[in-house]
Amino acid sequence: MSTRIGIIGYGNLGRGVECAIRQNEDMELAAVFTRRNPSTVSVLTDTAAVCNVADVEAWKDKIDVMILCGGSATDLPEQTPEFVKHFNVIDSFDTHARIPEHFDNVDAAAKANSHVAIISVGWDPGLFSLNRLYGNAILPEGSDYTFWGKGVSQGHSDAIRRIEGVKNAKQYTIPVESALETVRSGSSPEFTTREKHTRECFVVLEEGADAAKVEEEIKTMPNYFADYDTTVHFISEEELMADHSGIPHGGFVLRSGVTGWEKENKHLIEYRLKLDSNPEFTSSVLIAYARAAHRLAKEGQSGCKTVFDIAPAYLSSKSGEELRASML
Amino acid sequence: MSTRIGIIGYGNLGRGVECAIRQNEDMELAAVFTRRNPSTVSVLTDTAAVCNVADVEAWKDKIDVMILCGGSATDLPEQTPEFVKHFNVIDSFDTHARIPEHFDNVDAAAKANSHVAIISVGWDPGLFSLNRLYGNAILPEGSDYTFWGKGVSQGHSDAIRRIEGVKNAKQYTIPVESALETVRSGSSPEFTTREKHTRECFVVLEEGADAAKVEEEIKTMPNYFADYDTTVHFISEEELMADHSGIPHGGFVLRSGVTGWEKENKHLIEYRLKLDSNPEFTSSVLIAYARAAHRLAKEGQSGCKTVFDIAPAYLSSKSGEELRASML
Repeated sequence: MSTRIGIIGYGNLGRGVECAIRQNEDMELAAVFTRRNPSTVSVLTDTAAVCNVADVEAWKDKIDVMILCGGSATDLPEQTPEFVKHFNVIDSFDTHARIPEHFDNVDAAAKANSHVAIISVGWDPGLFSLNRLYGNAILPEGSDYTFWGKGVSQGHSDAIRRIEGVKNAKQYTIPVESALETVRSGSSPEFTTREKHTRECFVVLEEGADAAKVEEEIKTMPNYFADYDTTVHFISEEELMADHSGIPHGGFVLRSGVTGWEKENKHLIEYRLKLDSNPEFTSSVLIAYARAAHRLAKEGQSGCKTVFDIAPAYLSSKSGEELRASML
Repeated sequence: MSTRIGIIGYGNLGRGVECAIRQNEDMELAAVFTRRNPSTVSVLTDTAAVCNVADVEAWKDKIDVMILCGGSATDLPEQTPEFVKHFNVIDSFDTHARIPEHFDNVDAAAKANSHVAIISVGWDPGLFSLNRLYGNAILPEGSDYTFWGKGVSQGHSDAIRRIEGVKNAKQYTIPVESALETVRSGSSPEFTTREKHTRECFVVLEEGADAAKVEEEIKTMPNYFADYDTTVHFISEEELMADHSGIPHGGFVLRSGVTGWEKENKHLIEYRLKLDSNPEFTSSVLIAYARAAHRLAKEGQSGCKTVFDIAPAYLSSKSGEELRASML
């Protein structure tokens, strides 16, 4: 029997979830819920309903797992504890510092209503977190490194767009290759912010704007750019559309550590993602964890979980027997 | 309360487990069991008992998890189903083709005696298997690649040593860098055996042996070398000891796949291990899973498990709350 999925929020992430469902035979898209007028939203899946989010409760018995595709700043802190009252839910809440608080809110509502929630699913938090955990559990004496990129930072792109005279902009976060090589070589360096990542900006100016002034404002912007080596390129709107319309991302999680009675042996665990589409890859992770949530719910479990609490076998459509024979 | 560990078999792997226990504050080594005369075996841990394996049943209530450090060819198929009658056990059974049969044997005995077993723990099978599973679950349409090395293959080294005229030998399996780069570039190539790995042999000859004949015998040996580009270096016993006494290993698991409605976006997941000591790293994985086995047993679970069945949080000494705050 298929897992019937609902999507709340039909932006890049929601569309990514819709695409991921199509790649998984045991999944089907039941309905997309939007705050917009449903008649103005057209989805890719012929068989899926498009509904207003106000009508979501009518779908209680027709959806096995609801995937919440809103933002972490304001949507998810309210939505996840609310919708878990009626559905098993998955979210990609990614404000690391607020995860403990979000977990507690969702856990209480999930337990009170006997549903399963899996929060903070994606790649960071998500797959990167898993690799930090596995790395630390296996090499308890060592150092952790996370590098991001090369990829588009939405937050940094937005920050540039807010500058006077900027019409449009895209910012790439780029890991410093020599820093990666230093970690791989087996030393356990401590890096400054500047030593780990550089920032590259592609900026379209409004007519008559002062390029030198904009560049100076970008490079000295506190938190966002001041602590980094930043490069600014001014390009035309056409060039921006042609060469920078994708949403690639990725990065590296490394754990270096020592073993042996005298700690004489060094080890390196490196995990790397190289993603053409950040939202589509994140969505693919969400769908694998939706499979797990449905299974856990069928087992009678409830409460809030994270990727740390999910045994890997729950993510696969294959049986334990098939997995042992083909992948172990 | 500490997890009290027993070790059966005190070779490279057993000593590795002993070293790993020292790096984990919640673990203690209770006893080492050997087939040799215990008085001839000295261990590194002052507080640990050394016993004959025949006396293992006397330790039933004094050991929480027994780690079986024997070989997969003959030791583990007999030992794991036998010792799980009295203990929770971990093994590193690595004969991939025989895992389903081994699982069934261990599962029956574990359930009948209400113990937990986790089999085939290490890095391949083990961490590499996990990455194959996560990769396939997240990118269901794609290709899998596993490369091994650079590292010492015990089996290939042994095969060379059996050749007439060979006094000693060490064989390294080396991944072909250009093949790795092809996978990373985003194509989904199919490789022949020869295209993925090369083999490098360091050989010490007996006095008067015919080097050309030995080299020919190595390079044409079916299964082991005939399908590979193999390099043979003849060196002195002193050079072998000085430069090739370590047991490094490692490798790469890659999953490349596509997402999007038209499958237009490519993604690459790459997992890499670079290990100075294969047995010590494997032992570190064993100890993390011993922690999980002890917890599962305390929860009242029983039966045979693999790395696929263990939620990552069980591997860490930190609480769920600590993990969410520090690693998610």
